[in-house]
Amino acid sequence: MTKTLKGIAASDGIAVAKAYMLVQPDLSFEEKNISDADAEIKRLHDAVDASKKELEIIKQKATENLGADEAEVFEAHLTILSDPEMLGQIEDKIKNDKVNAEAALKAVTDMFIQMFEAMTDNAYMQERAGDVRDVTKRVMSHLLGVTLPNPALIDEEVVIVAHDLTPSDTAQLDRKYVKGFITDIGGRTSHSAIMSRTLEIPAVVGSETATQDIEADDIVALNGIDGVALVNPTDAEVADYQQKAKDYAAQKAEWEKLKNAQSVTADGKEVLIGANIGTPKDVEGANDNGAEAVGLFRSEFLYMDSSELPTEDEQFEAYKQAVEGMHGKQVVVRTMDIGGDKHLPYLELPEEQNPFLGYRAIRISLDQQEIFRTQLRALLRASHYGKLAIMFPMIATVQEFKDAKAIFEEEKAKLVADGVPVADDIEVGMMMEIPAAAMIADKLAKYADFFSIGTNDLIQYSMAADRGNERVSYLYQPYNPSILRLVKHIIESSHKEGKWTGMCGEMAGDQIAVPLLVGLGLDEFSMSATSILKTRSLIKKLDSTKMSELAAKAVDCETTDEVVALVKDYTK
Amino acid sequence: MTKTLKGIAASDGIAVAKAYMLVQPDLSFEEKNISDADAEIKRLHDAVDASKKELEIIKQKATENLGADEAEVFEAHLTILSDPEMLGQIEDKIKNDKVNAEAALKAVTDMFIQMFEAMTDNAYMQERAGDVRDVTKRVMSHLLGVTLPNPALIDEEVVIVAHDLTPSDTAQLDRKYVKGFITDIGGRTSHSAIMSRTLEIPAVVGSETATQDIEADDIVALNGIDGVALVNPTDAEVADYQQKAKDYAAQKAEWEKLKNAQSVTADGKEVLIGANIGTPKDVEGANDNGAEAVGLFRSEFLYMDSSELPTEDEQFEAYKQAVEGMHGKQVVVRTMDIGGDKHLPYLELPEEQNPFLGYRAIRISLDQQEIFRTQLRALLRASHYGKLAIMFPMIATVQEFKDAKAIFEEEKAKLVADGVPVADDIEVGMMMEIPAAAMIADKLAKYADFFSIGTNDLIQYSMAADRGNERVSYLYQPYNPSILRLVKHIIESSHKEGKWTGMCGEMAGDQIAVPLLVGLGLDEFSMSATSILKTRSLIKKLDSTKMSELAAKAVDCETTDEVVALVKDYTK
Repeated sequence: MTKTLKGIAASDGIAVAKAYMLVQPDLSFEEKNISDADAEIKRLHDAVDASKKELEIIKQKATENLGADEAEVFEAHLTILSDPEMLGQIEDKIKNDKVNAEAALKAVTDMFIQMFEAMTDNAYMQERAGDVRDVTKRVMSHLLGVTLPNPALIDEEVVIVAHDLTPSDTAQLDRKYVKGFITDIGGRTSHSAIMSRTLEIPAVVGSETATQDIEADDIVALNGIDGVALVNPTDAEVADYQQKAKDYAAQKAEWEKLKNAQSVTADGKEVLIGANIGTPKDVEGANDNGAEAVGLFRSEFLYMDSSELPTEDEQFEAYKQAVEGMHGKQVVVRTMDIGGDKHLPYLELPEEQNPFLGYRAIRISLDQQEIFRTQLRALLRASHYGKLAIMFPMIATVQEFKDAKAIFEEEKAKLVADGVPVADDIEVGMMMEIPAAAMIADKLAKYADFFSIGTNDLIQYSMAADRGNERVSYLYQPYNPSILRLVKHIIESSHKEGKWTGMCGEMAGDQIAVPLLVGLGLDEFSMSATSILKTRSLIKKLDSTKMSELAAKAVDCETTDEVVALVKDYTK
Repeated sequence: MTKTLKGIAASDGIAVAKAYMLVQPDLSFEEKNISDADAEIKRLHDAVDASKKELEIIKQKATENLGADEAEVFEAHLTILSDPEMLGQIEDKIKNDKVNAEAALKAVTDMFIQMFEAMTDNAYMQERAGDVRDVTKRVMSHLLGVTLPNPALIDEEVVIVAHDLTPSDTAQLDRKYVKGFITDIGGRTSHSAIMSRTLEIPAVVGSETATQDIEADDIVALNGIDGVALVNPTDAEVADYQQKAKDYAAQKAEWEKLKNAQSVTADGKEVLIGANIGTPKDVEGANDNGAEAVGLFRSEFLYMDSSELPTEDEQFEAYKQAVEGMHGKQVVVRTMDIGGDKHLPYLELPEEQNPFLGYRAIRISLDQQEIFRTQLRALLRASHYGKLAIMFPMIATVQEFKDAKAIFEEEKAKLVADGVPVADDIEVGMMMEIPAAAMIADKLAKYADFFSIGTNDLIQYSMAADRGNERVSYLYQPYNPSILRLVKHIIESSHKEGKWTGMCGEMAGDQIAVPLLVGLGLDEFSMSATSILKTRSLIKKLDSTKMSELAAKAVDCETTDEVVALVKDYTK
């Protein structure tokens, strides 16, 4: 009988394929005394040889799919397996202690790992500890006759089944073969969900039991639109899903036609749809999906993909590349939002009890001003090459905005004095993601050129519920009247001062939220590039006057459920 | 020259006395080879004898001041020092290894500590590890000729100087001799600050450098009203402080006269001033200070002072005692607010990344309903014995309030059906401490009988700043216009539905906030009992019409500084 799994719809699309279990196998073993040491040493050599062969293939695949840099780690693994010192010690242990290969492998590699890890002043050697650990796993899997998941080796169409997907897991996935994925944990804003949308792979997250209910080679029919998966579906169910997949493909083709269309409601009200990007490389995807702007350029990649603070020139090049790539369309760069769940090895941040309520973003920038000034100078220099705007994250008070803006003006004046070309019309705005700031949006609107609503944080702070905490995930309610009221106040406040408001959180591309946001008068919607065309299509169908009526009723609802019912009623 | 230290004014009052350093001395030592073992053993015995004498005195003092229960730990220490087994081993070590007494003491006691700690299934033996550690410190201090701080032994007037004060430190302080204290860390809402107000001891916290800038027996003139301390003041300065102390005493005497007075503004507007209490014992202090109600009875003590969940009867007795003690004045009991920074050994709560944004308070109650129902039954039964009201903490949505209220109604119906006497007019309200709830206060006011604003949490969530995190403490801004606007909306919403609003956070007794709160129409001010008379005195001087004008201007300010200037202008 078909098993049905329900989860959270994380990325649109339909897939039917064999399950690929991206699950760590049990590598536990029994330590045994053996009599035939030679036989045991042969088992060891066979396992090592099989591991080497596997690694050669993985290395080649990784080079083809991901590039030589990414494949380097597998070369390091091969080097370890060819090290006569370590292998010799394992052989000696088998001979001298008369133990099985598993026990000898574990004992010797543990020693090497400890030794490497103890070299705390040598980052290179510490990394080797991780390599030895990975290689040991691989050899152990061959000794035990179990299979390690090797996502890089996938060469047929599959649906990935995993407890969760880490960034390094997703880096290894080949879109040609990976048709979808389903995880046990995570919500719509988890890393794996965001990645699935970026890669345009249908996905269901938070199914709770996928790794238990699905076995390798089961057929999985995945519906990323509704958040459902069928395990070993009947022929009729497969046919149904294939039809759905066709319908979805047809719909996508329709959306594709809107690539160069304006974002305008049925009654002619214009809005802007922008893309959220993480690196200058993402500009291509933004343009391909018809983005009219970059509503959020997260600058953190510059700080996180590095072993030291990025220089002014490095930053300048990245910002310049992004603004040039957008050909005169606006690019809103958010200044450094480090802290919270994002840490930097070279910037010593304190351990905090509640990092989301701690020292992060503009709070660090105002405290450690040299870092901030370097970033502002790079941004100012890049402003000459296109239409650049700047916004500050985590502004809570008018004072903070004024302080940050004053530093910006100082750096601008210095550059101008030095004869460096700087745009004269840089808009300087702020993220609206802290309830206190939203409450005094009318005051902030006098100073900020624009607002960009960061819904992920605004919702988690307003609800006092960590968005990553499963136990309180029921409180992550984007359509709760309390949130809509804050959004309304922010938008109205900006309009009264002749300013504009965008939204760059997940909510901006959400199909229930968009009608409400049109009704509340949002000026710019910024989202994952892959959500742009779908959202433009939706907006084209909406009547802005009717949506204003909807919004007025929604902010007067009591609960999220009432709001959702109202939206469905108004958009049916 | 007089050194001046600035900190945070934590508890009103003036003190001039000798410094008592509540600072752990350096107990490090050099391990030495010795030749004369007998001399070394004599040093050991002398140190042990001196420690015993000290402990006898401490035990007696503790029995007098704190009671026999609290003194028991010192009896346990004496028992350890009389144990021939441990002492014998230390002597043997001196003789056999030819090491000095310090090294032998450390080696042997370390072994005992490890042994006790390893007994993980025996809580009693594990506690012994802590006792051995404490005793070792004491003997070591005598061997090294340094002095351990013994707060229980203080027998002259002192100002305590400490890095921070723990609950066990404050438990040992004798109010007769401790005239004030100053700490390096902490804010107005830290444990030590709250304790100082409860004990009515003048205090300055967060001075940053007190333990470095002050030495034992320095004279310290402490001003807990302004948050200033002078180290080794001149005669003129001492005279000035003594005059201030007299003035303050006179003022307190004036306040004392208001004990049975009504809380009413200069123009005749009545408000209520209640006390925040933690246990039924605190009712006495509330009455002594002229409380007109208990605005917040924290029920956590029932859960935290216990090794298992409190029974319905235990809870019933505690609630009954409190309502009876208040003789018909209202007692508002807040249901369990566990989680966040409060943990229970017997209730397995998950480790959380951001506990303040996690699984706590009503979120636990709605999830683990048996715990909640037990508490509600106990409250319902106690309602027969006085005027009891109930409020739910951490309500974020209308749905949560409705769910909690429905459970209350179910338990009430069951008790009534069983013929248990239950009051018919129990008010059921909620804490207003989550921004999302404040935003829809008008909706919640239809269901809740009253609101009680919890400013500590409301401010930390609105500002997205952990109130315990020093690095973002600048964002704890009770007078920020954003906070005042939320408070205004809450109060107005309750009044529109014919309900009332109280405030039970630190802000309700704050002298800058009170004029604003009177102006915003707050109905009930609930605070530490010791702040009641001072606040009543202040309210008597305020004109409510003028304060309304002040409040209207304050919510239209841009910054906290502007609000403070405005309040000072309106109350001068």
